[in-house]
Amino acid sequence: MKNYKIAILAGDGIGPEITAEAVKVLKVIEERNDVSFELLPAAFGACAYFESGSAFPHQTKAICDEADAILKGPIGLSHEDSKRIPIDEQPERGALLPLRRRYNTYANFRPVSLPKSLGHFSPLKAEVIGEGIDLVIVRELVGGLYFGEKEMGVNDAGLRYVRETLEYDESQIRQIMQQAFKLASKRRKLLHNIHKSNVLKSSVLWNEVMEEVAKDYPDVQVVNMLVDAAATALCLKPTQFDVMVMENMFGDILSDQGGGILGSLGLMPSACIGPDKAYYEPSHGSAPDIAGKNIANPYSMIGSVAMMLENSFDMEAEAKNVWAAMQGVFADGYSTADLSKPGSGVTMISTVEFGDKVVEKL
Amino acid sequence: MKNYKIAILAGDGIGPEITAEAVKVLKVIEERNDVSFELLPAAFGACAYFESGSAFPHQTKAICDEADAILKGPIGLSHEDSKRIPIDEQPERGALLPLRRRYNTYANFRPVSLPKSLGHFSPLKAEVIGEGIDLVIVRELVGGLYFGEKEMGVNDAGLRYVRETLEYDESQIRQIMQQAFKLASKRRKLLHNIHKSNVLKSSVLWNEVMEEVAKDYPDVQVVNMLVDAAATALCLKPTQFDVMVMENMFGDILSDQGGGILGSLGLMPSACIGPDKAYYEPSHGSAPDIAGKNIANPYSMIGSVAMMLENSFDMEAEAKNVWAAMQGVFADGYSTADLSKPGSGVTMISTVEFGDKVVEKL
Ligand SMILES: CC(C)[C@H](C(=O)O)[C@@H](O)C(=O)O
Ligand SMILES: CC(C)[C@H](C(=O)O)[C@@H](O)C(=O)O
Repeated sequence: MKNYKIAILAGDGIGPEITAEAVKVLKVIEERNDVSFELLPAAFGACAYFESGSAFPHQTKAICDEADAILKGPIGLSHEDSKRIPIDEQPERGALLPLRRRYNTYANFRPVSLPKSLGHFSPLKAEVIGEGIDLVIVRELVGGLYFGEKEMGVNDAGLRYVRETLEYDESQIRQIMQQAFKLASKRRKLLHNIHKSNVLKSSVLWNEVMEEVAKDYPDVQVVNMLVDAAATALCLKPTQFDVMVMENMFGDILSDQGGGILGSLGLMPSACIGPDKAYYEPSHGSAPDIAGKNIANPYSMIGSVAMMLENSFDMEAEAKNVWAAMQGVFADGYSTADLSKPGSGVTMISTVEFGDKVVEKL
Repeated sequence: MKNYKIAILAGDGIGPEITAEAVKVLKVIEERNDVSFELLPAAFGACAYFESGSAFPHQTKAICDEADAILKGPIGLSHEDSKRIPIDEQPERGALLPLRRRYNTYANFRPVSLPKSLGHFSPLKAEVIGEGIDLVIVRELVGGLYFGEKEMGVNDAGLRYVRETLEYDESQIRQIMQQAFKLASKRRKLLHNIHKSNVLKSSVLWNEVMEEVAKDYPDVQVVNMLVDAAATALCLKPTQFDVMVMENMFGDILSDQGGGILGSLGLMPSACIGPDKAYYEPSHGSAPDIAGKNIANPYSMIGSVAMMLENSFDMEAEAKNVWAAMQGVFADGYSTADLSKPGSGVTMISTVEFGDKVVEKL
């Protein structure tokens, strides 16, 4: 019997609610497989800051260090509430970025996937969705503007200024490219390389290294696309994409656009993979406006569990079952209030009920 | 009688075709108003580079310097063809950015507008478009990563690296904010401030200055939104927006997403306004794949003329007529092949025919 330790960072806002549903799914998987999951809850995010003065406390670091995988809920406060925390202690800068850096989780996989049958969730017309959207954004997660030097001050003219640095070296680009090509060669063998080489020199190097790595994957077709053109194309013809690779900030924006074309960020789980450790999180924020109402859909969190089963525990079959169970609940005509408008012919259920129905299907 | 000099930079790809139609419109306006337009064609872009070795030749600079306004077509080559030009001479770096810097055109206005009646162009469902999309992206155009220092080299570990700088000072932010608030107070008095202050320090300063400027516009309601959330929201509920203000790179990506939700970048004109000079251009690229086929829609270029009439020549009424004429051609059931799929019940006309029909309506 395999034993895995899983750190559970429930986070802020809707985090605890949707994490509870994901934990239910882990329990089912544990019961029917020759595996045991030791769940290690730990404080992380704004809640941790208010409790202990640190958004990523030492105990949490220790728990994550010894865990085999980390399940992380969304963190953060509303725009106004964030002002209650000094800028550098805010949970994004004080917890999330340090988590990514600590485990060097450079490869962020964000599936943007919607079967034709769930077209009613999407703002896009049926003919645009065609046979369904099924792409993966591979986002570089520990470089670029996110981790570059930052300088704030007052210049010689007496003006406040900020200077930040976007930096990449070839090894950072090569490792994310290898992940993207590897994934593309397991899928439709089509890789869209997203860049801005007509303005950014970092994209010039990015493209150079991409061409070097491409030589090792002669069966993968590469399409080069400017990031702005990609933003257009994701709306106009998302079905043209299979795997898209891009740097950190572009990936942030385009993956949220991905949530937009699906109909909700609530449909966006993700995996953040480093050389020795991986963590799994929804791509969305903590949605303080709907927190505590038992209406958030736990799809992104349960989907993150599915990605964990596949990537961290080699349980591909069970991962598939989890996806199928969630699709099954939708197929039965159920959804949560954040996903469907009343009157769309869908039966509205709560966060907890959605989790229960997924468990039933499993 | 007023005399205006207009520099005409037709550009690359579809540029000359759509510029020709815009010029027809200028002629009509000239004929029926107490105004004369002296049109000064000048080489600009990849075509200029191949002709003279410079994408923004001295003669063109001289012509632009003496012009009252500049009408600029799209520039650039396909990904493969750009490799025929050294990186720093490519038309984006060699012509477009120098043009923006030369005239300090810091305020870029990009209307994203689609009346309900043209909903068939859009990939979005009718219920998402509602009574129509009508927002303006106000993009800072001469700062940020676009104009920061760039360094490429090999580091101590022997690895190629690139470092680029994103820089803003408070005066740059203040001037674009003032433009945005001014526009918002003339429209629905709703301003979405788009930022990424949970990661970027430049956004922290951005938001600080925004709050300072906001004090002068107490009647404008400000909504702060993270750039990634804005990318989601532009797909899910574009009608919530009226004026959106953002820094250069965010504006590049989100305005192209704007073209995506309308159905084509061909529907995206823009105005680039500096303290002493303004230029007008489509927000899209030169579309080398459809160049020379007489199928590109000149809407973005004629719309840029409308913006010129309003902003540079105080001819607001004629500007309105130009918009109305173009909507009228669409309303009569005509469109170009790049905008509509065959079989959508629309009569397909060519670039030239579209221009002719606009002229007829005028
Ligand atoms: C919360 C924020 C720092 C984060 C990011 O920008 O990476 C989030 O938007 C995401 O996409 O994971
Ligand atoms: C051509 C390119 C340099 C330009 C930009 O990035 O600003 C274009 O995409 C635009 O949006 O005007």
